[in-house]
Amino acid sequence: MIKAGIIGGAGYTAGELIRILLNHPEAEIDFVYSTSQPGKPVSTIHQDLAGETEITFTDSINKDADVVFLCLGHGNSKKFLAENHFSENTKIIDLSTDFRMNGDHDFVYGLPEFFKSEILSAKNIANPGCFATAISLAILPLAKSGEIKSDWHVNAVTGATGAGTSLSDTTHFTWRDNNFSSYKSFGHQHLNEIGQSLKMLQPDFSSEVNFIPNRGNFSRGIHATAYTEYNGSLEDAKKLYSEVYSEAPFTHLVEDIHLKQVVNTNKCLLKLEKFGDKLLVTSVIDNLLKGASGQAVQNMNLIFGFPEDAGLKLKASYF
Amino acid sequence: MIKAGIIGGAGYTAGELIRILLNHPEAEIDFVYSTSQPGKPVSTIHQDLAGETEITFTDSINKDADVVFLCLGHGNSKKFLAENHFSENTKIIDLSTDFRMNGDHDFVYGLPEFFKSEILSAKNIANPGCFATAISLAILPLAKSGEIKSDWHVNAVTGATGAGTSLSDTTHFTWRDNNFSSYKSFGHQHLNEIGQSLKMLQPDFSSEVNFIPNRGNFSRGIHATAYTEYNGSLEDAKKLYSEVYSEAPFTHLVEDIHLKQVVNTNKCLLKLEKFGDKLLVTSVIDNLLKGASGQAVQNMNLIFGFPEDAGLKLKASYF
Amino acid sequence: MIKAGIIGGAGYTAGELIRILLNHPEAEIDFVYSTSQPGKPVSTIHQDLAGETEITFTDSINKDADVVFLCLGHGNSKKFLAENHFSENTKIIDLSTDFRMNGDHDFVYGLPEFFKSEILSAKNIANPGCFATAISLAILPLAKSGEIKSDWHVNAVTGATGAGTSLSDTTHFTWRDNNFSSYKSFGHQHLNEIGQSLKMLQPDFSSEVNFIPNRGNFSRGIHATAYTEYNGSLEDAKKLYSEVYSEAPFTHLVEDIHLKQVVNTNKCLLKLEKFGDKLLVTSVIDNLLKGASGQAVQNMNLIFGFPEDAGLKLKASYF
Amino acid sequence: MIKAGIIGGAGYTAGELIRILLNHPEAEIDFVYSTSQPGKPVSTIHQDLAGETEITFTDSINKDADVVFLCLGHGNSKKFLAENHFSENTKIIDLSTDFRMNGDHDFVYGLPEFFKSEILSAKNIANPGCFATAISLAILPLAKSGEIKSDWHVNAVTGATGAGTSLSDTTHFTWRDNNFSSYKSFGHQHLNEIGQSLKMLQPDFSSEVNFIPNRGNFSRGIHATAYTEYNGSLEDAKKLYSEVYSEAPFTHLVEDIHLKQVVNTNKCLLKLEKFGDKLLVTSVIDNLLKGASGQAVQNMNLIFGFPEDAGLKLKASYF
Repeated sequence: MIKAGIIGGAGYTAGELIRILLNHPEAEIDFVYSTSQPGKPVSTIHQDLAGETEITFTDSINKDADVVFLCLGHGNSKKFLAENHFSENTKIIDLSTDFRMNGDHDFVYGLPEFFKSEILSAKNIANPGCFATAISLAILPLAKSGEIKSDWHVNAVTGATGAGTSLSDTTHFTWRDNNFSSYKSFGHQHLNEIGQSLKMLQPDFSSEVNFIPNRGNFSRGIHATAYTEYNGSLEDAKKLYSEVYSEAPFTHLVEDIHLKQVVNTNKCLLKLEKFGDKLLVTSVIDNLLKGASGQAVQNMNLIFGFPEDAGLKLKASYF
Repeated sequence: MIKAGIIGGAGYTAGELIRILLNHPEAEIDFVYSTSQPGKPVSTIHQDLAGETEITFTDSINKDADVVFLCLGHGNSKKFLAENHFSENTKIIDLSTDFRMNGDHDFVYGLPEFFKSEILSAKNIANPGCFATAISLAILPLAKSGEIKSDWHVNAVTGATGAGTSLSDTTHFTWRDNNFSSYKSFGHQHLNEIGQSLKMLQPDFSSEVNFIPNRGNFSRGIHATAYTEYNGSLEDAKKLYSEVYSEAPFTHLVEDIHLKQVVNTNKCLLKLEKFGDKLLVTSVIDNLLKGASGQAVQNMNLIFGFPEDAGLKLKASYF
Repeated sequence: MIKAGIIGGAGYTAGELIRILLNHPEAEIDFVYSTSQPGKPVSTIHQDLAGETEITFTDSINKDADVVFLCLGHGNSKKFLAENHFSENTKIIDLSTDFRMNGDHDFVYGLPEFFKSEILSAKNIANPGCFATAISLAILPLAKSGEIKSDWHVNAVTGATGAGTSLSDTTHFTWRDNNFSSYKSFGHQHLNEIGQSLKMLQPDFSSEVNFIPNRGNFSRGIHATAYTEYNGSLEDAKKLYSEVYSEAPFTHLVEDIHLKQVVNTNKCLLKLEKFGDKLLVTSVIDNLLKGASGQAVQNMNLIFGFPEDAGLKLKASYF
Repeated sequence: MIKAGIIGGAGYTAGELIRILLNHPEAEIDFVYSTSQPGKPVSTIHQDLAGETEITFTDSINKDADVVFLCLGHGNSKKFLAENHFSENTKIIDLSTDFRMNGDHDFVYGLPEFFKSEILSAKNIANPGCFATAISLAILPLAKSGEIKSDWHVNAVTGATGAGTSLSDTTHFTWRDNNFSSYKSFGHQHLNEIGQSLKMLQPDFSSEVNFIPNRGNFSRGIHATAYTEYNGSLEDAKKLYSEVYSEAPFTHLVEDIHLKQVVNTNKCLLKLEKFGDKLLVTSVIDNLLKGASGQAVQNMNLIFGFPEDAGLKLKASYF
């Protein structure tokens, strides 16, 4: 059993990590670090854990943990690592945006479906964003085959957990219940990491990804549609995507698709359709699992040589 | 047209008052007082009003308004009236708890179905609480006929607007969505005003009202069930309730009952059933209308001699 | 008071018409025709109407009604009119798709913001579809000015009332609750009427409208985003839209937009944004009101010379 | 690995059984019987299973399965067993009401917290009802100690999955969304099995259980409150309940309680409070798991000598 630490333990993604790791066959929780809740049982915050664990939050870290998950607000991971040092052997898996763009650091972008070999030998992982995961899995196969020739038009909707635990007008129940709205149109921060992956896989990629994110009146999940011009047939596309994802334990092509198929799982389901000269790809994930903590554990599994789906065979809630 | 002022204009009940008064045939909005938003159009806060009104919030009041609605937090109405003085002819309608219990003040408890004659000659009105309205209309007919001999057992669920606009853990969408919980069991503050009405109508009333309030995962409305021992037949009960509410424009007996029948209306629907020796009364209202602002306008209508339902023939949203 | 008949009285749009007409200052309900429910009070089906009306469904029609609303399934309006004849003076307002495409009939497409003069002199009205209304109001101003030069990319989500009262897998609560899905991508039937309007306003229009409809987990409303290339500035666009809608009582430009601003109203709110060379228009309506019964009454008001907003100053539910 | 058969494979509870058994360490699915879907992959109906299993529905049964779960409509289990015969060693676990009342059959009532010794040696199991489970776990400890002296007052709300997969007015999304209603007040069928357990544990029990069930606007879960007169202190009650549930892996006392703590888990959480002379017990379960399929697997685990929580350490969805 490897020892795992969680930094920033009171948020959504930390809660999901705890839920997963409590039942993981190869890893155990070493500490859950929270400066705001030290000494409190984690089940006082993550209240579904009542009866399952006696772990308490701590404000001290174990520098020799095998793996440390950073569940901090964007911008705070860099700061935390500057102030806190782990052993040479400790693997860092960061769930923030801080290290997703390539640069002067040793973090590998942790999208296993496309960068598995880099992940297997990585020191540290920059875990992809939730929208980035849903969209990348929908569009990157066409980049891998070098076939993106025109703009992508992407529309996606996320649940309220996508906005984090902090209270705001748009996460107030009376506002969000039975409501719908867009935000950050054409300018969402995840476009950067999507663009980086596109360029890595198809260096001559020079089109645009037009992306409108939306706030849905549900708690978990992302539903995305993406279309672009595509010369091949639907069968060509299905063949391509099937090959790209032939080894992926969580990413599958389906004929019927809706969001709740994947809620509370680490899966990404994809549906392909062809209309005229356009290929339409629909993609669904759970934003907190495949879009965050589940994928983080998937990356941990890869780095440590565990089965890729260890601890991640999760029962869908479905209803 | 009488001139109406609204104090505390940024909250839910103020918003509902504005929505109603904009289309009221006998009243017009004179000012909407808000110390936090002076100068801003009310439609920047109550955003559904876009295109309907140019009114702006103000931090000054007109002491000669014909009627002033106090939409302040509990405890703040008394304070506000101590610091601000209106003309002798100005009627005050207070939506807080401050004046609901009889005492050293000239406010009349504004439940028109039972205290209409007092309201008609009132100087000022203490508008009933939302749970108190739903429950009182369910149980007071039996008090009026002096027939309550044993405890009432009441269970009611309210929408998230019942908790006010402030953000809290239990109004966060991710918490409340598809959730359910109880709070303040056997100790909700509205039991005081319910008890006062019971005593006024049936002076020998000495039983208990056991009340469990619940938080529902919807925005508007209260659904309450209340049962007690009752010697009469179901027909006796129906006759009694029909007579008590024969003149009430908004309170009706029905055979089928569910919450959405009354959402976005000023109505209270009631269903009577008899099981063994128990009478079960189910009651539904919109907590912001019959449970707050709608009833406030109903009281205004009565005081000023307007038709009781003026401005209150509201289209149910129903779905 | 004119006399109005409603055909197909048990569905959603008939219910909304009854709710509106009960409080309409210039029209009264003459009959509500339903072959499935004759003799029953309408409040047994539209249960929010308890206490408001004693009208019963009938299986006979009054051929001399001033106006008749057809709330029948698509394809059934033509059939009904072939089998039932009204007086020469009776105006027919059809809510189905049967007469929306120009052809061998005397129905005028009832989108008042663009075809008011035709409506004013119309014998009969083909009431626009719900998606068609939301999208047309978003994109037609640019057609009116002849400025559409490239494809529109449209994504819209509708509430479950859009699917009608019949029960189906995708309207089952356990399926739809907290779910999201697309359907009829690039092939929704409303594209026909949108295309017809585009061609009428901009005869050289030859681009495509790419439209992905979605099923949202809410009951009422449509939220649509639509973007296209646009050479002008944001100010140019705002000026254009403001002028086009300067006389429209229900269609307004706003800076903040979300679905619940318009739920239970006859309004359409629009927000304009410019990103690079693209104009993004967000549009929200209530699918049952501006998208169906409200617009039908608006058309009735125009034909009969009533104020365009008579009976349609509806209180938003908002929460 | 034991071999498990599932009869009536297209419904909610069968889907949940498949989800659990696919990951169960000691059992494997032998067949999923469905007369309506033979030959189809189970993932065409239970669509979240895409990518997880290739099992297809069958219309033939294996008479030598180790355990067979009956997921049939109430009344159909008896009929099915009369027409289909399994081997002597096959254990039957019936999820319907057919064998819950003691009588001329060899089914044991499968509520492990109270009848574990009977279950351990049982041939067949009658799996408790969902409301019955939530309520029994709330009130039976007081029966076990012989301390129920007066009526219980119970109010509980269930999600829409409680009504089964068939479509009905009250499971239509447009009706149920943001709605609330009661049904079968004082007459729910689960009162029989609750009464039987009360009598078994406290033979002199002669009070009433007043029970009002409600339909909530969520998909999964039951939230119940139950109160009765109780002479002991809150500490006495906590001591009693803690002792009764000291060996129960899924039933725990908590200080904070709300429904989503248990959704998608096999847990029952309980909160105790004392108000005056009344003990209030709040109880939450997932109606499809602890209230149906999860408890069925728990019973299977006990009969076959597996760890009681084998395959049931489920990640809560929580949001």
